[in-house]
Amino acid sequence: MRKPHKSKKKRIAKTIGKAPGADGYVGQKFRETTDIEIQDYSKEGVHVIKTNNVEDAFKFKTTDQITWINVNGLNHTEEISKLGHYYGLHPLVMEDILNTDHRPKVDEYEDYFFVVLKMLYFNKDEQFTVEHISLVLGKNYVLTFQESEEDIFDSVRSRIANPESRIRMFGADYLAFALIDTIVDNYFAVIEDFGEKIEALEDQVFNENPDDETPKSIQFLKREVLKIRRSVFPLREVISRIEKSENPIIEERNRDYYRDTYDHVIQINENIEIYRDMVWGLMDMYMTTVSNKMNNIMKVLTIIATIFIPLTFIAGIYGMNFEHMPELHYKYSYYILWAVMVLVFLGMLYYFRRKRWL
Amino acid sequence: MRKPHKSKKKRIAKTIGKAPGADGYVGQKFRETTDIEIQDYSKEGVHVIKTNNVEDAFKFKTTDQITWINVNGLNHTEEISKLGHYYGLHPLVMEDILNTDHRPKVDEYEDYFFVVLKMLYFNKDEQFTVEHISLVLGKNYVLTFQESEEDIFDSVRSRIANPESRIRMFGADYLAFALIDTIVDNYFAVIEDFGEKIEALEDQVFNENPDDETPKSIQFLKREVLKIRRSVFPLREVISRIEKSENPIIEERNRDYYRDTYDHVIQINENIEIYRDMVWGLMDMYMTTVSNKMNNIMKVLTIIATIFIPLTFIAGIYGMNFEHMPELHYKYSYYILWAVMVLVFLGMLYYFRRKRWL
Amino acid sequence: MRKPHKSKKKRIAKTIGKAPGADGYVGQKFRETTDIEIQDYSKEGVHVIKTNNVEDAFKFKTTDQITWINVNGLNHTEEISKLGHYYGLHPLVMEDILNTDHRPKVDEYEDYFFVVLKMLYFNKDEQFTVEHISLVLGKNYVLTFQESEEDIFDSVRSRIANPESRIRMFGADYLAFALIDTIVDNYFAVIEDFGEKIEALEDQVFNENPDDETPKSIQFLKREVLKIRRSVFPLREVISRIEKSENPIIEERNRDYYRDTYDHVIQINENIEIYRDMVWGLMDMYMTTVSNKMNNIMKVLTIIATIFIPLTFIAGIYGMNFEHMPELHYKYSYYILWAVMVLVFLGMLYYFRRKRWL
Amino acid sequence: MRKPHKSKKKRIAKTIGKAPGADGYVGQKFRETTDIEIQDYSKEGVHVIKTNNVEDAFKFKTTDQITWINVNGLNHTEEISKLGHYYGLHPLVMEDILNTDHRPKVDEYEDYFFVVLKMLYFNKDEQFTVEHISLVLGKNYVLTFQESEEDIFDSVRSRIANPESRIRMFGADYLAFALIDTIVDNYFAVIEDFGEKIEALEDQVFNENPDDETPKSIQFLKREVLKIRRSVFPLREVISRIEKSENPIIEERNRDYYRDTYDHVIQINENIEIYRDMVWGLMDMYMTTVSNKMNNIMKVLTIIATIFIPLTFIAGIYGMNFEHMPELHYKYSYYILWAVMVLVFLGMLYYFRRKRWL
Amino acid sequence: MRKPHKSKKKRIAKTIGKAPGADGYVGQKFRETTDIEIQDYSKEGVHVIKTNNVEDAFKFKTTDQITWINVNGLNHTEEISKLGHYYGLHPLVMEDILNTDHRPKVDEYEDYFFVVLKMLYFNKDEQFTVEHISLVLGKNYVLTFQESEEDIFDSVRSRIANPESRIRMFGADYLAFALIDTIVDNYFAVIEDFGEKIEALEDQVFNENPDDETPKSIQFLKREVLKIRRSVFPLREVISRIEKSENPIIEERNRDYYRDTYDHVIQINENIEIYRDMVWGLMDMYMTTVSNKMNNIMKVLTIIATIFIPLTFIAGIYGMNFEHMPELHYKYSYYILWAVMVLVFLGMLYYFRRKRWL
Ligand SMILES: [Mg+2]
Ligand SMILES: [Mg+2]
Ligand SMILES: [Mg+2]
Ligand SMILES: [Mg+2]
Ligand SMILES: [Mg+2]
Ligand SMILES: [Mg+2]
Ligand SMILES: [Mg+2]
Ligand SMILES: [Mg+2]
Ligand SMILES: [Mg+2]
Ligand SMILES: [Mg+2]
Ligand SMILES: [Mg+2]
Ligand SMILES: [Mg+2]
Ligand SMILES: [Mg+2]
Ligand SMILES: [Mg+2]
Ligand SMILES: [Mg+2]
Ligand SMILES: [Mg+2]
Ligand SMILES: [Mg+2]
Ligand SMILES: [Mg+2]
Ligand SMILES: [Mg+2]
Ligand SMILES: [Mg+2]
Ligand SMILES: [Mg+2]
Ligand SMILES: [Mg+2]
Ligand SMILES: [Mg+2]
Ligand SMILES: [Mg+2]
Ligand SMILES: [Mg+2]
Ligand SMILES: [Mg+2]
Ligand SMILES: [Mg+2]
Ligand SMILES: [Mg+2]
Ligand SMILES: [Mg+2]
Ligand SMILES: [Mg+2]
Ligand SMILES: [Mg+2]
Repeated sequence: MRKPHKSKKKRIAKTIGKAPGADGYVGQKFRETTDIEIQDYSKEGVHVIKTNNVEDAFKFKTTDQITWINVNGLNHTEEISKLGHYYGLHPLVMEDILNTDHRPKVDEYEDYFFVVLKMLYFNKDEQFTVEHISLVLGKNYVLTFQESEEDIFDSVRSRIANPESRIRMFGADYLAFALIDTIVDNYFAVIEDFGEKIEALEDQVFNENPDDETPKSIQFLKREVLKIRRSVFPLREVISRIEKSENPIIEERNRDYYRDTYDHVIQINENIEIYRDMVWGLMDMYMTTVSNKMNNIMKVLTIIATIFIPLTFIAGIYGMNFEHMPELHYKYSYYILWAVMVLVFLGMLYYFRRKRWL
Repeated sequence: MRKPHKSKKKRIAKTIGKAPGADGYVGQKFRETTDIEIQDYSKEGVHVIKTNNVEDAFKFKTTDQITWINVNGLNHTEEISKLGHYYGLHPLVMEDILNTDHRPKVDEYEDYFFVVLKMLYFNKDEQFTVEHISLVLGKNYVLTFQESEEDIFDSVRSRIANPESRIRMFGADYLAFALIDTIVDNYFAVIEDFGEKIEALEDQVFNENPDDETPKSIQFLKREVLKIRRSVFPLREVISRIEKSENPIIEERNRDYYRDTYDHVIQINENIEIYRDMVWGLMDMYMTTVSNKMNNIMKVLTIIATIFIPLTFIAGIYGMNFEHMPELHYKYSYYILWAVMVLVFLGMLYYFRRKRWL
Repeated sequence: MRKPHKSKKKRIAKTIGKAPGADGYVGQKFRETTDIEIQDYSKEGVHVIKTNNVEDAFKFKTTDQITWINVNGLNHTEEISKLGHYYGLHPLVMEDILNTDHRPKVDEYEDYFFVVLKMLYFNKDEQFTVEHISLVLGKNYVLTFQESEEDIFDSVRSRIANPESRIRMFGADYLAFALIDTIVDNYFAVIEDFGEKIEALEDQVFNENPDDETPKSIQFLKREVLKIRRSVFPLREVISRIEKSENPIIEERNRDYYRDTYDHVIQINENIEIYRDMVWGLMDMYMTTVSNKMNNIMKVLTIIATIFIPLTFIAGIYGMNFEHMPELHYKYSYYILWAVMVLVFLGMLYYFRRKRWL
Repeated sequence: MRKPHKSKKKRIAKTIGKAPGADGYVGQKFRETTDIEIQDYSKEGVHVIKTNNVEDAFKFKTTDQITWINVNGLNHTEEISKLGHYYGLHPLVMEDILNTDHRPKVDEYEDYFFVVLKMLYFNKDEQFTVEHISLVLGKNYVLTFQESEEDIFDSVRSRIANPESRIRMFGADYLAFALIDTIVDNYFAVIEDFGEKIEALEDQVFNENPDDETPKSIQFLKREVLKIRRSVFPLREVISRIEKSENPIIEERNRDYYRDTYDHVIQINENIEIYRDMVWGLMDMYMTTVSNKMNNIMKVLTIIATIFIPLTFIAGIYGMNFEHMPELHYKYSYYILWAVMVLVFLGMLYYFRRKRWL
Repeated sequence: MRKPHKSKKKRIAKTIGKAPGADGYVGQKFRETTDIEIQDYSKEGVHVIKTNNVEDAFKFKTTDQITWINVNGLNHTEEISKLGHYYGLHPLVMEDILNTDHRPKVDEYEDYFFVVLKMLYFNKDEQFTVEHISLVLGKNYVLTFQESEEDIFDSVRSRIANPESRIRMFGADYLAFALIDTIVDNYFAVIEDFGEKIEALEDQVFNENPDDETPKSIQFLKREVLKIRRSVFPLREVISRIEKSENPIIEERNRDYYRDTYDHVIQINENIEIYRDMVWGLMDMYMTTVSNKMNNIMKVLTIIATIFIPLTFIAGIYGMNFEHMPELHYKYSYYILWAVMVLVFLGMLYYFRRKRWL
């Protein structure tokens, strides 16, 4: 059963002034059950468990094996609460797991890291999707909390399944790195797609005929680049703080991996800034095109009016009905007048060509 | 009795060059009495006292219970002064309690914190309201000073009334956190409302017909976003300095709560920056729309003029009264002329269509 | 006797490449005598001395009383030099006392602080005035050097006269604070006046008819806001460095007062930035108004031309003098033509209304 | 055999979520063999070896001589991998050697530095080329990895060949400096060429007739300046971190050389910022030119229309066919009318000249 | 003999990839000889020596007297090289002495400071000149290297000649200060001149008639302000690093002097930023003026067209040749028509006045 969407305003109003704790899911994805997927592994082997019962996930807290508990669905807040209490999560952490509007961040508690991220991807229906994901990294376990079942972690799942892989040799911190790195790698794909949209719009502005809808499309891209920027920008500090942390949860040899992801985040931010400059520039380019078109329109009007208005005046003169107009009676007047008018016409053409309007 | 508003200029002039102290209320909200509301509580129970006599609030300074003394009304400066002296507040603190223009800040004194904030809310009449609020956090008490009775703290009052709540277990620093957190949570509601106004205006600019009033509305939004920004921006440092302070008034376990509020402040500032960019962009969008309309107007003029001016010239030619104009006497001249004019007309249409003006 | 103004260029050329020292007054206010006003006070009493002889100010250097020596007039550089030498001022300090173009700063010497400030005020003739003022704060004395007699320190003088005032209890550092604080308080009045000018101009741009003079006024405001900004911006660092200095000249209990002034400086800078944004926005608003007016002008032209040019063409047709034009002889032709023209006219009106041009 | 280009999208998709390691060449330059050029030298002499077999490069790891191993071609990833494993490179380093999109950076490992740079140059066909180059600096060796054979290091090769040169006296860190310095020196040539393009475009905008293609050229330059900026900007930090590193690989006496290159990088960045400002300004200049042309067009139209429309009206009056129009019968009417029209004409000319339109 | 100018491109190409050293003069001022001017002085007296032989300058390296060796002309690089070797300068320092494109900087070596500056001045022919100058400050000597003979140091020379001057009492660090201070003082004169140019252009834009050349002048000023900025901006760090250096070459008592110069550099940078804002604003002002002129042109056209087009239409009606047009035969028709046309004319005038177009 899917609950009807509440207006965002009401969602926020609901949480104002409340005590912190896991009772304020503000997202809009409602699932009937909370699906839990557990990967419990060591060098020797892997156990994969899928369940709807949160209590099935309790026993992994203290085992030596590395455990990844992935929770899909955040609307059954009491389930999240139970799991959080068992794993000793702070009420503020539980609040943020449910607050899908929260910006990316990392909080370091005594025996775990709490990381909030945005997963950006094109879903099965090719829709651009921003999904709130939180990750708890403890000594031997990683908890991930997602809003919907779909995700981008299949490559991690298959690396866990492979007994030769580095992920099977290393600890929970390497698993967390692999998940975060996969999220970051996806940003490249997303912003690349974005870059293609910008280039298409640039072509439209410059080469084809931009129309009155073009500014709306530019405005839409502006909005989108701000949205991506907002999801990615804070990651810089997040990754850097994990890498520099002195908490023994992060093994020395794994810091290099986090530093590598940090490089990627820097590069993505740089690309976003460049795209941002390009989108901002698009509007200027559009205005330039509009101005140029205006100039061309005015040139046509001016050429026509400047040529024919004087000629029409001359014709008007000889359309007057005065009794005494000697030219009217002269035999070659009409032919002379035509000659004069052709000369005026040619003079105008010459003038416009010299001004490079023609 | 309500005193008449003074012009702001006089208000400020009044305080120039004076020695610091509690005698310069510069706000504009005048109340007949200073209403004091006291919540004195511990795990065991709560006492609520409402009084107009500032001396009723003296006895709570040294009791073990946690006490929240909320003062409504700042115009009776001598009352504020009495309370301040009793609680040992610095003359500069008393000055700032009354200076409703003061920006948010925190000052750490030996035995108390002094915090200045802006409370933003929609009041009973749905008016957007900015209220100056100052907060003094001592070992076992919190003093709050507001200009008017209305506030946004009812959720805190009911949490105090609830014997199970965390607020009843923790100290005055947690009470102060709860009050500040409530103020910050309200910012989300306020900027969300602001976002809706921006979107309405964007729709107006792009889809409906923007009129000459539109730039005024954009200008008004610009002003409002600067006002909100100014109230919220300094909070970043305020909260961070409380959280990082080594003063024992802030218990170790409560720092996490302040850090959580810090997260919210960062997020609000980020949202404000995005809204700011959007409002700034609105004016550009409006100018684009105006330019496009101009282009369309000029196209109509040019098409009409370019078609009919040459035709009128031709008609003018044959309206001339020369005696010797052979065409006038030829039988089919009139019909041939119509044919020529229709051809010119169609040629023009073809030209405009090829230029994509039609 | 008032010396004639030199061009600024020459004033500066005069000082290029010279050795540092008190011989380069670059200001433009010349007085016949150097007026010295001395306030020598302690808790017990006050002596006020007015003199033109700089040597009358020598004896206060080492007395226990607090002494404020206020020097009006900087053009008699040899007098300034004598006083400076007696009080042990560095040649560079004496140079900067006379350099009225110098930006605000503080220099800490072993036994005194040297502070350069700008005093902004509306003088007796309501002219906006920027006056260079320098202040030397020693253990028991404060020297102030002003260009002209007028200043804004009367409130400080009356506080010194009042035996109950804090200024009489505290040291020279508190006197310096009181002077600086008075200068800063005046900035509020100045920028408030500035804000009113901006609002008046905004009204003019939006509601009344802006004219060709409006951009000049906007440009003038831009210039003025830059001038104020330049006087106020460096104060941030000046006050902060005094407050944080470990020099025993600044008593511990007085740091709070300097910090309070620091708050004010921050707030003023914030206000200036907001005014700056507003002035910058004014030009955009003006351009928008101009564009809108252009659109309206073009609409009128287009409507008139588009209605009458085709009608005139039709009239032209039946003004032709062909022998064989059957319509001319038909009895109701004229009435039918009127009907057609009225229809064309109404059709055009309908078209313009549908385009919302009417 | 040259593999077909993949679309960039697919290239990136290929690497998402993979474990780090040397298997993801994302560039577009494919070579049949991996060409290796080895310069092994000391004060005494130089050995130059060219080979396609990566194993020929193994023996130089531990010799006392300085060795520069330059690898051309990155598509045979297994060869790179072999070399990397032998020289003990981290899998993340091998990944970045192949990731030709990577921004410039330096990573310091225990026994080597890993540096990523962009080599900008005009190739044999005078095409502007950006080539990804990575450099590994160990105690006695330098490895460089390039995409294509062409490079800009011939001057370094000839300095190695010269037994008198400083490069032969100093260590591997000086060799690395010489290579980086050569890359940086080339940036000067590239941005100089860029500056010439800007100036040509400025001339076009101001002096010759800018056309509708001009904004496209400006846009193209904008894009190019962003591309260069992106390659050069991060170098600042790269060089500074090498210079400040405490790793004994960098000899004390060679730090001055790195600092010198740092100076050059700062200067290049400064130049790029100036060019950037200039390119941004070009669009404004173009718009100004377009506006001026519009003004001139409108002036011509207005002058013509304003002169002839009233004259045509007068002619129209006397073309009316009323029976009772006394002027028509007066003998000198026609001449008087001409006089009036000439006067109107002259009056208009005078008016336009006074307005400085003529 | 003066060598022909090389194109800049070739100059730079010449230095790419070369080993550092004094063999790459890239400037464009060639002198036949290298002129050396030596001032060797102490409290007791001064020796002034002028020579073309660089070896005459060797003996001053170790004497107790303070020596200023000023070298004019950088094209005889082997001479510079000889002097540099004798004074123990690093090859990188010698390279930078000759690299006249180098930005201002300071390098601290063990026994000397190396300072690069730009000397800005109006030369004998009143041309604005930027001259590269480098300064080496050792324990007892100062070396300066200039491109051409002309400089701005005459005031320093006369202070050295004066036995009473501070320069004669203090060390080489004070001499270096005096030289740098003189350079900085000249910046004030240069930017003041620049300010006057801006104001002249502002007057032109607002009051007189700006023409099509105006944007070029604005663009030229933009370029010039960037050039000055570039020479002055880095000085901030240069002076600050000398002042804060712990090298004993800088005497404690002289730090105050460097700090004073630092103040001046800050003030100059501030002024440049203000001028920069003003120049940037000039283009906006120009565009505003252009728009206003366009509006006025369009108003004239619209007024004329709107008045006469309908009137011409009416005249056209009664110029038609229909047989049956009753009005034509009515006796007062012509007079009535005139009355109608005058009424239409007056109505239009009234309409335009109400719209404030007249
Ligand atoms: Mg809350
Ligand atoms: Mg999901
Ligand atoms: Mg990655
Ligand atoms: Mg990497
Ligand atoms: Mg940027
Ligand atoms: Mg703009
Ligand atoms: Mg005060
Ligand atoms: Mg209230
Ligand atoms: Mg909150
Ligand atoms: Mg939270
Ligand atoms: Mg900002
Ligand atoms: Mg930004
Ligand atoms: Mg922006
Ligand atoms: Mg000087
Ligand atoms: Mg004064
Ligand atoms: Mg104050
Ligand atoms: Mg205060
Ligand atoms: Mg600013
Ligand atoms: Mg701004
Ligand atoms: Mg990867
Ligand atoms: Mg290559
Ligand atoms: Mg170099
Ligand atoms: Mg160098
Ligand atoms: Mg810049
Ligand atoms: Mg710019
Ligand atoms: Mg070099
Ligand atoms: Mg010279
Ligand atoms: Mg100076
Ligand atoms: Mg000074
Ligand atoms: Mg700036
Ligand atoms: Mg600006």
